[in-house]
Amino acid sequence: MAENRPLIWLNGALVPAAEARIDPADRGLTLGDGLFETIRAENGVAQHAQLHLARLRQGAAILGIGVPLEDPKILTAFTEMLAANHLTAPAVLRLTLTRGPAPRGLTPPANPHPTLLITAATLTVAPETIAAIICRSTRRNEFSPLARIKTLNALDNVLARNEAIDRGAADAILLNTQNTVAEASAANLFLLKGGTWLTPPLPDGALPGVFRSLVLARQAAFEARIAEADLFTAQSLCLGNALGVQAVASLDGQPIEMQADAITALRNILRPGKT
Amino acid sequence: MAENRPLIWLNGALVPAAEARIDPADRGLTLGDGLFETIRAENGVAQHAQLHLARLRQGAAILGIGVPLEDPKILTAFTEMLAANHLTAPAVLRLTLTRGPAPRGLTPPANPHPTLLITAATLTVAPETIAAIICRSTRRNEFSPLARIKTLNALDNVLARNEAIDRGAADAILLNTQNTVAEASAANLFLLKGGTWLTPPLPDGALPGVFRSLVLARQAAFEARIAEADLFTAQSLCLGNALGVQAVASLDGQPIEMQADAITALRNILRPGKT
Repeated sequence: MAENRPLIWLNGALVPAAEARIDPADRGLTLGDGLFETIRAENGVAQHAQLHLARLRQGAAILGIGVPLEDPKILTAFTEMLAANHLTAPAVLRLTLTRGPAPRGLTPPANPHPTLLITAATLTVAPETIAAIICRSTRRNEFSPLARIKTLNALDNVLARNEAIDRGAADAILLNTQNTVAEASAANLFLLKGGTWLTPPLPDGALPGVFRSLVLARQAAFEARIAEADLFTAQSLCLGNALGVQAVASLDGQPIEMQADAITALRNILRPGKT
Repeated sequence: MAENRPLIWLNGALVPAAEARIDPADRGLTLGDGLFETIRAENGVAQHAQLHLARLRQGAAILGIGVPLEDPKILTAFTEMLAANHLTAPAVLRLTLTRGPAPRGLTPPANPHPTLLITAATLTVAPETIAAIICRSTRRNEFSPLARIKTLNALDNVLARNEAIDRGAADAILLNTQNTVAEASAANLFLLKGGTWLTPPLPDGALPGVFRSLVLARQAAFEARIAEADLFTAQSLCLGNALGVQAVASLDGQPIEMQADAITALRNILRPGKT
């Protein structure tokens, strides 16, 4: 990657990241009024891009934000971004869509000009096993439609991650307001029980992750409500998203069983060429 | 105001708004990782500015974001902004603080450079009475510490406001996850009962608004849990924030009593010279 001169894609043009300008009045900044997608790329090709764009459009419809480009043009922008930044090694694309600049206040403008931003970076290799905690500082709000879309309102997730780091762990599992398990700070949760992978259903506050949807579509996991106590008796616990799968070796300092074959099977669902 | 050439204050300098640049990697944009304050100004003077800055610092401490300037310098920036934009009529300042630019991911950077932004605009006169609804599309998450601070994660509030507009009203009252009343989309709620103003307590999901704190400090209102049904039997309902007080004339289409003297008394707490 051209580390010293990375390019980003902003509203239709590739521009040097150091010069790209977001308007201080952009509602993405002022109100978190927007969405994002985080997409893995291999050999210069965005992986499962159609699934990511379908989810983006679902979220945009819920928020009433127009997606300013058709899918083929966004896919072309992904390819251009990866090529322009010489990202042939595993990489990560981030697409951000906001409602665009507007005067002060919650009410959306009558004639919005959404902002579409794509950035790219080398994918840093994450540890295969991690220590995790159960987040005590905040809860996931399963009553909000925002729990079902990947919005720019990620501050509860930041609080959860910060708590994990403060407590000497790498990630945090969030409970919802009814005290059942929702997901991790930036990944869905998968729990092995009786040899079967289970994952919390969407009404419990799980984000409909792209990796989660791939796993469910292959019946490699099934939706089931997960209680806090279930976590400690799991045959394995994994945190998975489009970038990778991490096995939880300990939770709140207690060791968690890890069944290598089941974890490998889950991880292989993300392998390029497997879809 | 210099409508064609408004100036904003960004990280220590007054710059034309049309040229001011927010970095696309700013965590305020990418994650909503930041806070804001909305401050009324009269005759070029920010009102209750110390209360706003105290609340900003409380929120910044919860998020672990450093405020890059001491209060006197921020107060000077407010005055400069109002003067530079010729805002002598009632105006509104908005201060935005973010954790600043960072690489992708939830984990905050080790060495952050927070972004501090101040914008100003003429205060548009809001109607003194409005139609309101009870929000059905989302709920306030009283389990999150973010309910107690004014963050850039305002998308639940945007959803509530949009629902109000869709249903022919001006604003929405949000319930929390236990179905008791929390606040309105951008204001605290005040309910007159037996001649006394009541307002939801913070654990019920009320933001600690600056107007709310002024009202409580004078014992012009008292904290009390408010059930949804209580709203319809109120002697008056008002939505109040630092910019003004609006009386609710109807809720979900049902007329609400309005006691003019009590509403005027509440409204007068915001009058300049009254503190």
